[in-house]
Amino acid sequence: MLSNHLQNGMETAKLIWSRLPNSEVEADGIAAGDFSRIKKDDGSTVESLDYEVIENYAYRQEQAKRGKVYMAYSVVVKWLMALLIGIGTALAAVFINLSVENFAGWKYSWTFNLIQKSYFAGFLVYTLINLALVLSSVYIVTQFSPEAAGSGIPEIKGYLNGIDTHGILLFRTLVGKIFGSIGSVGGGLALGKEGPLVHIGACIASMLGQARSTKYHLRTRWLQIFTSERDRRDLVTCGCAAGVAAAFRAPVGGVLFALEEVTSWWRSQLMWRVFFTSAIVGVVVRTAMAWCKSGKCGHFGSGGFIIWDISGGQEDYSFQELLPMAVIGVIGGLLGALFNQLTFHIAYWRRNYLHKRGNRVKVIEACIVSLITSLISFGLPLFRKCTPCPEADANSGIECPRRPGMYGNYVNFYCSDKEYNDLATIFFNTQDDAIRNLFSAKTIHEFSAQSLLTFLVMFYSLAVVTFGTAVPAGQFVPGIMIGSTYGRLVGMFVVNFYQKLNIEEGTYALLGAASFLGGSMRMTVSLCVIMVEISNNLKFLPLIMLVLLISKAVGDAFNEGLYEEQARLRGIPLLESRPKYQMRNMTAKEASGNQQVVYFPRVVKVVDVLSILRSNNHNGFPVIDHSRSGETLVIGLILRSHLLVLLQSKVDFQHSPLPFNSRDGPVPISRHNLTEFVKPVSSKGISIDDIHLTPDDLEMYIDLVPFLNPSPYVVPEDMSLTKVYTLFRQLGLRHLLVVPRASRVIGMISRKDLLIEDHEDTTTIELQSTSVRDHQNDRRMPRRKDAEQPLLDGLIV
Amino acid sequence: MLSNHLQNGMETAKLIWSRLPNSEVEADGIAAGDFSRIKKDDGSTVESLDYEVIENYAYRQEQAKRGKVYMAYSVVVKWLMALLIGIGTALAAVFINLSVENFAGWKYSWTFNLIQKSYFAGFLVYTLINLALVLSSVYIVTQFSPEAAGSGIPEIKGYLNGIDTHGILLFRTLVGKIFGSIGSVGGGLALGKEGPLVHIGACIASMLGQARSTKYHLRTRWLQIFTSERDRRDLVTCGCAAGVAAAFRAPVGGVLFALEEVTSWWRSQLMWRVFFTSAIVGVVVRTAMAWCKSGKCGHFGSGGFIIWDISGGQEDYSFQELLPMAVIGVIGGLLGALFNQLTFHIAYWRRNYLHKRGNRVKVIEACIVSLITSLISFGLPLFRKCTPCPEADANSGIECPRRPGMYGNYVNFYCSDKEYNDLATIFFNTQDDAIRNLFSAKTIHEFSAQSLLTFLVMFYSLAVVTFGTAVPAGQFVPGIMIGSTYGRLVGMFVVNFYQKLNIEEGTYALLGAASFLGGSMRMTVSLCVIMVEISNNLKFLPLIMLVLLISKAVGDAFNEGLYEEQARLRGIPLLESRPKYQMRNMTAKEASGNQQVVYFPRVVKVVDVLSILRSNNHNGFPVIDHSRSGETLVIGLILRSHLLVLLQSKVDFQHSPLPFNSRDGPVPISRHNLTEFVKPVSSKGISIDDIHLTPDDLEMYIDLVPFLNPSPYVVPEDMSLTKVYTLFRQLGLRHLLVVPRASRVIGMISRKDLLIEDHEDTTTIELQSTSVRDHQNDRRMPRRKDAEQPLLDGLIV
Repeated sequence: MLSNHLQNGMETAKLIWSRLPNSEVEADGIAAGDFSRIKKDDGSTVESLDYEVIENYAYRQEQAKRGKVYMAYSVVVKWLMALLIGIGTALAAVFINLSVENFAGWKYSWTFNLIQKSYFAGFLVYTLINLALVLSSVYIVTQFSPEAAGSGIPEIKGYLNGIDTHGILLFRTLVGKIFGSIGSVGGGLALGKEGPLVHIGACIASMLGQARSTKYHLRTRWLQIFTSERDRRDLVTCGCAAGVAAAFRAPVGGVLFALEEVTSWWRSQLMWRVFFTSAIVGVVVRTAMAWCKSGKCGHFGSGGFIIWDISGGQEDYSFQELLPMAVIGVIGGLLGALFNQLTFHIAYWRRNYLHKRGNRVKVIEACIVSLITSLISFGLPLFRKCTPCPEADANSGIECPRRPGMYGNYVNFYCSDKEYNDLATIFFNTQDDAIRNLFSAKTIHEFSAQSLLTFLVMFYSLAVVTFGTAVPAGQFVPGIMIGSTYGRLVGMFVVNFYQKLNIEEGTYALLGAASFLGGSMRMTVSLCVIMVEISNNLKFLPLIMLVLLISKAVGDAFNEGLYEEQARLRGIPLLESRPKYQMRNMTAKEASGNQQVVYFPRVVKVVDVLSILRSNNHNGFPVIDHSRSGETLVIGLILRSHLLVLLQSKVDFQHSPLPFNSRDGPVPISRHNLTEFVKPVSSKGISIDDIHLTPDDLEMYIDLVPFLNPSPYVVPEDMSLTKVYTLFRQLGLRHLLVVPRASRVIGMISRKDLLIEDHEDTTTIELQSTSVRDHQNDRRMPRRKDAEQPLLDGLIV
Repeated sequence: MLSNHLQNGMETAKLIWSRLPNSEVEADGIAAGDFSRIKKDDGSTVESLDYEVIENYAYRQEQAKRGKVYMAYSVVVKWLMALLIGIGTALAAVFINLSVENFAGWKYSWTFNLIQKSYFAGFLVYTLINLALVLSSVYIVTQFSPEAAGSGIPEIKGYLNGIDTHGILLFRTLVGKIFGSIGSVGGGLALGKEGPLVHIGACIASMLGQARSTKYHLRTRWLQIFTSERDRRDLVTCGCAAGVAAAFRAPVGGVLFALEEVTSWWRSQLMWRVFFTSAIVGVVVRTAMAWCKSGKCGHFGSGGFIIWDISGGQEDYSFQELLPMAVIGVIGGLLGALFNQLTFHIAYWRRNYLHKRGNRVKVIEACIVSLITSLISFGLPLFRKCTPCPEADANSGIECPRRPGMYGNYVNFYCSDKEYNDLATIFFNTQDDAIRNLFSAKTIHEFSAQSLLTFLVMFYSLAVVTFGTAVPAGQFVPGIMIGSTYGRLVGMFVVNFYQKLNIEEGTYALLGAASFLGGSMRMTVSLCVIMVEISNNLKFLPLIMLVLLISKAVGDAFNEGLYEEQARLRGIPLLESRPKYQMRNMTAKEASGNQQVVYFPRVVKVVDVLSILRSNNHNGFPVIDHSRSGETLVIGLILRSHLLVLLQSKVDFQHSPLPFNSRDGPVPISRHNLTEFVKPVSSKGISIDDIHLTPDDLEMYIDLVPFLNPSPYVVPEDMSLTKVYTLFRQLGLRHLLVVPRASRVIGMISRKDLLIEDHEDTTTIELQSTSVRDHQNDRRMPRRKDAEQPLLDGLIV
């Protein structure tokens, strides 16, 4: 047992030792206790984040120091950050696109040239280039940045939901993601670069906000205003939006994606900044593309960057078409849900069996997938007969067959002049071009149903198998490929069925793409806007909306969205927006369980701190003190991470078991820089094993008052868990104290108590000043006089 | 003094009488005390709303009764509601547009015909038709539905922020808004129909959700699931989005408008439904227009419904253009802020001086404004010289002069053949057509700078004067008019300055429109999407974004947004999204002020209830009780409105001062229908004057336990007001109890305590079931066994 001396030699506080449940590490599960650090089987860990601004004495002191100038400065820095995030993400996107387009361009032009002489030589070169690119990608990922594998969206979603997966926002992850994406996308695998770009945006944002590196011993003082998890979260939100805006050239879609898909909270001030970031991305990407148009960037310029302009397509739609469109929605929901289910099972198997055997297995796996992909995409079109070109239509401006090395429809592959291979048009092509071909208008009957079906089955299987290999991989482009294929199939039937109507197959391909993404990712508004922005056609907005609604509803009947499934698989415990049904019948007390609470007294012995921290893995501890009348009071919450900082720095140790008194010397907190208490992003922070204390140190005391959060959010014990959940999630909390019912009410706060006028805004006040308002101002304006004094000095007897 | 018998004859609770500040009514101010009912000078009142679901015993009992079938039924009804809101709002929009276009069409064709013979006869007919339309509008509004005046957006914004302005969502308001809009817009005033359409959508939503009318004695049982303010708020949100979607044919813009501008909270489940409503609106409006295209709807069909297609315009933009575009942003910010300031002062003057003189003054005012508008719009073009038509360009398809009775550019007014009047083209035209002309591409030098400047000054003045007359009035279309005029002016200078570039004046007009709306309304994302959707051109998205950002930033330097200014003027106390700076140094206790709390004991005498309700205007009262050990405990919060229902129904009166015991008879709450406790929307609910009690009744008792909210949100007394504000606003609260610091902590809730698996979802659990998760489920799953028992029976000794 520990003995704790309380101030003034009052009675020893009885520390209630917690009967902790097993705090061991479980594979993919959630460790009991707090999420102080959960190791997973692959060595990665996740940690809860606290988005509440901890208003301890240090924070208040820092705030007090900040004048108007500082506030203006901080606003300027925040906007500058948004600007830099936008520029950085846009440049990364341009670099990736430029590289991918050039690699793919060289690959296809070499192959086409060789095919004229020998199929086998062509196949060999094609396969080897793909293999080399994929190999470089998987090598970078496995050797250098394991966190760069996959799309990264589930992890970013987790981060913004309040769960930090270690290593997800580091510089090495950024580098691995950029170069890995180039390899995996350039290597022709059935994956896209859009998910990784979102991750890249988030990494850039996080690094800019950090503006220092513990590893590389870099520090800038001027950016230390981003000291709370909340500021960092805001930056990462901007980064996400920038990523989507850059990936799809869809600025509004980016804002909405950040809003709908990744964040669990929202502030309208932030929207304003996210919006700015997206606009900057739009301008920078456009400028870069305009610069490249003159041919300075090799193959990049004419192709690349997914904008599938279908504005030349169908002008209008009629009522009869609503039924086939609904059918597309249903197919999308079914295939999307199936995709989620299959990828979940395969990814589960990979994590638990295959990838446990080490990096070599991951490399071999990626290479095998690459070989299979090359074989199928080169081999299948060979079995397909050539189709004679349709009669030339001068107005459409579409050449058949297209000239070698150019982008466009009607790839002739091995066919003779005036012929083309419809399977090669979609299979033996970059994915961006394939989608452009599928979406293309005025090309009725370009594809045969047989080719489309073959492609659908093969590509769907490839996408499922590729998902989860150790390379950066997005699911947007494969999803659009799959969806537009069956969409075009349905479109072909509709064209045959309603021969009188002016129907374009490309429109149905667009709706198919929307339906598959809706059925798999379950986004609505953001996906809809993204689809509209990439297809550059507003006419079908209501149709896209309806198709999305149907496919999401069908998909929801089977399983969760792709990102939620993957987050669960990776042990990222997301809090959903809706509380569970059974929470209605539970109370806060029941939810907090049998676990007993570990208290700290206000002044605590160092040895006791150490042994409490060692003996459990809680992350926050209530601190109690005694009032003048001897009554016990909860005076705040102290975080494990802050205690570790205090133990490591040792400057706050004192010999006396009496609480700190300002007459004794300088205020303790002034010995610290506020940033010391902030955990570096995505790192593990200080561990208890890093702390080395002498026996003398152990006998000293710490007064915790300056370092604790004096007013954590509390809920009464019998509050319904639904309400607790809402509170917890909406405010982005990490801890919530469950307290007994109050014995009295000190006051009631209603709306009028929160309406305080800004005094700067004198003109408007003048008009409004009624007696009540003035009275209210008089009553409320006195600022806390003791703002410079420790908050809880009143407790010192 | 009142004496209160507590249960078991325990000691009398000391009721602390509040020293209430003056609860009198102040003109436009905020009454002290709670917002139980604030009368304003014009006789309207506002009231706070509580969006927290009050989980009293009645609610829990209702929940317990609801099985799976009921849940499914409620989901179906909610979606059905969304569908009906969409259809209803779309039909209202079509009706308004159809009427306006026809009235305006007849008006202009008659006038044009008469002009050929006599200017004066033409002017007379024009003026009289305008006057008649405006008169009908102002008559409907003043006599029938005073709440229909203005745009309604500030009130709807207030409603969704938690403030109910009485009468704002009634049937008569809906009717007045629809017919009033037709008159005011058809009468050619400088106002639009878009704001009113948002209000109309909200009214339709609210009425559908209510599905009963106390006034007309209608009741439907099947829709009584919308029993909480929160459900109704969700419906109104859908209605808002539907209104914008219908007004601008901008479904995504509607969703974003509801999200950004009007709601202060957001749930992603709701987004899904809002999205559906918008999509339905899009489909219905499109269908109606397709039906009208064949000429079945008179003048409606070719014109009407603002979609200003500028897709034929400028293809690209160059860097040199960014400077003039930024200039447009700055002008927009300045003119927008000036507009807000002028309208605020004029509206203030109107409310406090002019409109106090009764309805006759309002009618005369509107008529005078109508006469001035007619005079200016007919007279000014007469002073303008005719311009010869430009050389015909066969490709552009634009006729000069346009044929009489048609829509288009180059109005010839009084000019001869091959000539047109540029001022008449924008002034003597419906506003939709004028905007179409200003946005039009391939019409360089159509307008002279002199005409545009004249129009800008005159129309700006008209818009300022018209704003605030007693007719339904939106500010979107006037804003677009003003903005596109100076935008086109800037465009003309740019065309002259950069003669080499391919620049369209219409593009600058579009940017100008965006900048003025941004400078006045201060929306960003939603406005941007609306502008893109109405101009049907995605290419200028980043430019619109940047212009909006600049104009909003410039405007923010001067004053608040238009809706916030107007809400303030109307005494609607909106809680802004950002807490005020000085709140950082205040605590919850300071905010709740000196006002002392009025408690109720658990079992209270009827006469005491009555006298407490009479003696103050608080809206919620804490209820206290004594535990077994004699300690006082706060057991919940009872609302004034619920107490009034209890007093009126009398069924819960009991003779004994002992608390209710289930052995004595039926559970009290089962004598009530849950809907009895819900205040009908936008009505004043039961007043204390409606209650008539006999002397016998007064001597009886009520046990409050079944009717109180057992777990209102609480904050500790020294929590920073910033945190309190966030909590209050994010959760949409009406009351927050300030309690003393807790003496102990019962438990801590962290993320893991809130992760409860759904048991239905067996397949995924199977994969995930680690020992911990199972263990957690075991521990947490026991539902409250006494769910059928009153919650606080444990307190009965």
